[in-house]
This record gives sequence, structure tokens and C-alpha cells, in this order.
Amino acid sequence: MNEALSTLEQGMAGGGLDALLVTDPKHVYYLTGFASNPHERFLGLLLIRGGEPVLIVPALDAEAAHAASSVTKILTHSDTDNPYELLKSCFAGSKPGTVGIEKEHFTVHRYEQLAEAVPAEAFRDIGHLLRSMRAKKTPDEISRMKHAAELVEEVLRQGLTHVKAGVSEIELVAELDYLMKKVGASGPSFDTMVLSGPNTALPHGVPGSRIIQPGDFLMFDLGVYAAGYASDITRTFAVEEADPKLAEIYNTVLAANEAGIAASRAGATFGSVDRAARDVIEAAGYGEYFMHRVGHGLGMDTHEYPSLHGMNGDFIDIGNVFTVEPGIYVAGLGGVRIEDDVWITPEGPQTLTTMSKALTVLHL
Amino acid sequence: MNEALSTLEQGMAGGGLDALLVTDPKHVYYLTGFASNPHERFLGLLLIRGGEPVLIVPALDAEAAHAASSVTKILTHSDTDNPYELLKSCFAGSKPGTVGIEKEHFTVHRYEQLAEAVPAEAFRDIGHLLRSMRAKKTPDEISRMKHAAELVEEVLRQGLTHVKAGVSEIELVAELDYLMKKVGASGPSFDTMVLSGPNTALPHGVPGSRIIQPGDFLMFDLGVYAAGYASDITRTFAVEEADPKLAEIYNTVLAANEAGIAASRAGATFGSVDRAARDVIEAAGYGEYFMHRVGHGLGMDTHEYPSLHGMNGDFIDIGNVFTVEPGIYVAGLGGVRIEDDVWITPEGPQTLTTMSKALTVLHL
Repeated sequence: MNEALSTLEQGMAGGGLDALLVTDPKHVYYLTGFASNPHERFLGLLLIRGGEPVLIVPALDAEAAHAASSVTKILTHSDTDNPYELLKSCFAGSKPGTVGIEKEHFTVHRYEQLAEAVPAEAFRDIGHLLRSMRAKKTPDEISRMKHAAELVEEVLRQGLTHVKAGVSEIELVAELDYLMKKVGASGPSFDTMVLSGPNTALPHGVPGSRIIQPGDFLMFDLGVYAAGYASDITRTFAVEEADPKLAEIYNTVLAANEAGIAASRAGATFGSVDRAARDVIEAAGYGEYFMHRVGHGLGMDTHEYPSLHGMNGDFIDIGNVFTVEPGIYVAGLGGVRIEDDVWITPEGPQTLTTMSKALTVLHL
Repeated sequence: MNEALSTLEQGMAGGGLDALLVTDPKHVYYLTGFASNPHERFLGLLLIRGGEPVLIVPALDAEAAHAASSVTKILTHSDTDNPYELLKSCFAGSKPGTVGIEKEHFTVHRYEQLAEAVPAEAFRDIGHLLRSMRAKKTPDEISRMKHAAELVEEVLRQGLTHVKAGVSEIELVAELDYLMKKVGASGPSFDTMVLSGPNTALPHGVPGSRIIQPGDFLMFDLGVYAAGYASDITRTFAVEEADPKLAEIYNTVLAANEAGIAASRAGATFGSVDRAARDVIEAAGYGEYFMHRVGHGLGMDTHEYPSLHGMNGDFIDIGNVFTVEPGIYVAGLGGVRIEDDVWITPEGPQTLTTMSKALTVLHL
């Protein structure tokens, strides 16, 4: 049995649960190694205390599940079978006490069918259990995340060679998305963002047909999925020349990024990372222009637990991975954001993203 | 009020529902014109019998909602507000009878919060109501779908110029996805499929590093999203020369595609479209090699109601749009699929996809 599955079984026992049903395909992958997209068909991993884990998959995925899953007891259902009857049969006639389900993933439609087939005394949410497990990455997960970071940096490096006279934001987006597949990533981990000139002042701007101009700041925010894990990087460049005011802003954001990373240590709070970065920006007089949290957890999802906002009093742990991405956005002038993916090790923070952060001038 | 919303209000009255809560962002868009991705935040359209429709949106989407929504009563909630309290306030203290929700979209987590704030006598599923409304496209929807079809055909035409000596399946996928953005589509409506040679015998094959070879059949199955609506087209080509056996298969599939389209008339059953295409393939002796349904509904989703399998006894209606995509797949040899998007008009079927279906030989 893999490590994640045995941790979950301990959580089941510790939480007083008699059984667990995991149905989010991402969590089934995380716990068994079997990745799939069942669409509307039923996929579930059932753990009953004291019993062998059971993976329930659509019949057409049976071969793939047997090849990939570390859980070897696999039950299948065809499109004319009722998967809830299969679940019922796993309880062999005994009425379960408390059953854990992912209430933020399970739909009411499925819940009604489950509750009828398996009349448990109670159904309790296990979202927090999986969330906190996922926040603590294993060495295998870290190596996948390093690879995803290497790939996105290769994409950005190659993408920069396409910054030429006459090119638009949206053309650079298309180029970057194309390069992601070329270098071997599964695809973007979110909508690739390329913003230029005054558009860089919009933290959630949408790339458009604006042509890159000399004197612009040019912001790239992109990530890829590779082997099921996401990367996420932001770098901001000057085009032809660096406006002195923007250069000052750049260096402030860079200092904030580095302060945030330095504060990222096991035992500190997530909120203290936000405050370390924010202090630098406030001290430079730009506090009101940094209007978002400093970062977010990263892993199988691009945004996952934890949220790095100033009020988060939860403690950083060895194995956490999150982004540190302060920014300053001045309407009419422009903005700068610099983002790294940070991994917490016993020796302190390590960045998975490694591209230079010194202010760089691109030539058209 | 737009037409879809008034149809839904009639459905609410006819179905004996006292209120409806629509939370699928796609359905909110369909009913109000406001498109958004609220992520984990609450978005909902609330209809109470005899009252004015209310749109509830996250505060950060307020401006966009006011600009786009045909429902003008808009309530907002910030990240520290409880949106279920907002819902409760809309009922002004009266206890509702039966409330319709989308049970296949609503999670248990949300349901528990809703049921606590709004203790209705019953919650009933309204999925079927929205599904059948969406199956009957309006003229505006048809014009969007025509545009999505035009764009994907332009992508395929341009993509064919990249079929050259040494190119692989996955490189052609990257090229096609790149062209989608270049021509102005939002992106692919599903994972773009390019299969070559023996791989064309896999109805759900995954594009890989195989290099296109003379003598191959080469299958493209792709679609784009544009203005919220999907297209979906399959064309199969011969490379350098057409193997005589594959040419025979090609012409059989083409005849089946045309028979399926001809059978697509208001008043016939969806199942009869499948059978019309299947009859042609069975008569040619290839019945066992056509192992999937003939098509699926198309619109805001790439796969939506109806499913065109032989047992579907529901009746085709004016305004329906679905794919007709018979195929023959012979392991070891190869396969052919030809797919069009068909719109049902009072005058009979019209194909939104218009690219030539005559067997075409590509040169490397």
C-alpha cells in the first residue's frame, strides 16, 4: 500500500469513521496511482475499517486501472449496472456507522443514490483530511513539481525569443501554449497571461491584441501540468529600455519576493510570509498598490490549500509547496509581479523556479 | 427578460415549483448573458414565483455582472459574507414549498448550507428542464455555432499544410491548438485528436510521437469554443496513396454519414439516426467494427443531451444540433470516422460543418 493511502487509513481510524468513499478523480489518482477522467460515470475508492481497499471503476477503464492502481481489488460496472449496488455489496449487509465523503465534490444527485443504497448512520466530510495530506508533498511529488517548473522555464526562455516588433500579447500566449506541448508538458495549468504596457497594471488582466511597444513593461504569468503536477511562474521584463519609475517599482517587488521567500520556514505562519513581503512594499510607499494575497498552495491543483493571506495563522510544515508572488500595480503606469514556487525543506526554503530575477531589458 | 428565462419560469409554474436556484455558471450564462468562472465562490440565479429574478454574484464580479446580465436585480457578497443568508433574505421570512436545484451540479456541502438557511419543504432536481431547453437552439445560438464550425474548419485547413515528411501526431496537435487561438477561437472544445496509420483503429486513441508515413490513413477529430459554443468535426485523409481496402472502408463510412444526416428530421427518433447509419455499415459487412453510438448533442457543452444511440426513442425537434459521426475501426489495419454537426430546421437537416468529405490524398 502506498504511503498516502496508509495515512488516510490512520485518519479514518483517528476520526472515528467506519468507512471512506473517495470520488474526486484527482484524489483517486493521489491515493492509488490510477489517473482517469470518468466523466459522468462512477469512480470511487472505498475503504472500510479492517477491510481491503476497493477501487470501483467503469468497465471501459478496467484494463487501465489494473495496469496503474496500487489498490489491486478492482470492481467494475458497465453502463447498464448500478454502481451504488456495487458499493452496497461491499458492506455485505452490515449497516455502516459514519461514512466519510468529499462533500465539496459529491453532488446531491449522487448523495441521494448513495444514501439509499448504503443507509449509514451519518455521512461526514473528509475534505480537510485530504487537503492537509496533499499540502505535505512526498519526494516523488517534489520531483514531479521540479520537472513541471523546469518545463515552464524552458517554455518562457523559448517564448522570449518571439518578443519582436509587431507581436501582440495574444500571439505570445499562443506561442507559449504551443511551446508547452513541444517541450513535453501536458498543457497549461491555467490561462497563460501575457500583459504589456498599461495592461500590466491589471492583476487579472486578459491578454488582447495590444502590440508590444518600446518602453513597455511586459509581464508573463504561466504554468504547465506535467505528470499530474502544476508549476506557476511570473516574470516581468522591460522592453528596449526601463522607465526609471517602473525600475524602482521592479526592485521593490523583487525585494518583497525575496523577503517572502526568506520568511518561508517551517514553524512560521503562512500569514507571516504575506506580511514579510507586504512590509517591504509598504515601507517603499506602495502598500495600496499590492491588493492581493502573496501566494497560494501548489500541487495537483494550481490553487490549493494553503492560502497565503495575512490572516492565515496555520503553521508552515516541511514538504509544503506554495507560490510567493508579490506585485505592485499602478493604474495608467503599469505593474510588476515576480513569482516563485517555494518548497519548504528542513534546511529552509528552496525555490523550484530558478530563472534570473534581475531586471532584464528585452530588445525587439 | 430573455426567452430562455421566461421558458424556465413557465417550467417552474408547470412543474409545481415555488422557486428555482440555478448555480451552474454555464446555465447562469445561458439564462442571463453573464459569463463567469466563480471558482469556489457562490454564484446563483434565484427565481421565486411571482417575484423578480435575482442574480447573486461575488462582489468582485459585480461590475461585469451589471454590464452583461439581462437580470438587473443583482445582489453581491464579499468573501466574508455568507451567501446563503442572502438567499434567505430573498424569501423574506416565508418558508418555501418546493425549490428546484440542479442536483447533478449542486454539492452536498452547498446543499447542507442551503437547506439550513432556506428550510424548504422539498428540493427537486431541475436538470431535465434545463437540458431540454438547451437542446432547442435559438437563432442566436445557431449563429454562434456556425461561427465555431467555420473557425474549426479554418484551423483544419491551415493545419493540413503542416502535414509534411517527419511530422508526428503530437506535433500536429500542438499546431492545431496554436491555430485555434490564432484564428480567434477561445480554445479547443476537447482534447484535439490526430491519429495515424494503425492508430486510427482506436476510437479513443491518444496522439503520440508516431511519425506520419506514406500509405497511412490520418484522422483529425477536433473542435473549438467560440463565444461560449462548441464545434466538433472529424475528417480522415489518405497520405500519398489510398490503400484499396481503406478506400472501401472510407466510402462505406461516408455513405453511413450521409444516411445518418438524411435521417435527421424533426419527428423522427434520435435512435433512428443511429440505425440509418449503422444499416449502411452492417450491409457492407463491417457492423462489428462500428462499436460506438452515432453521435451526441452539441452546444455549450461538447457532449450534451441528446445521446444518439440506437435505443433512444425521444423525438428530434426543430432547433436540435447534434453530431453524426459513424466510424469503422479494424485493429491492425486502421480506421475511418467522418463527423458533421447537424442542425434541424423546418426544411430538414443542415450541416454546420461544410468541408469536403470526398476521399482526399495528402502529399508529404
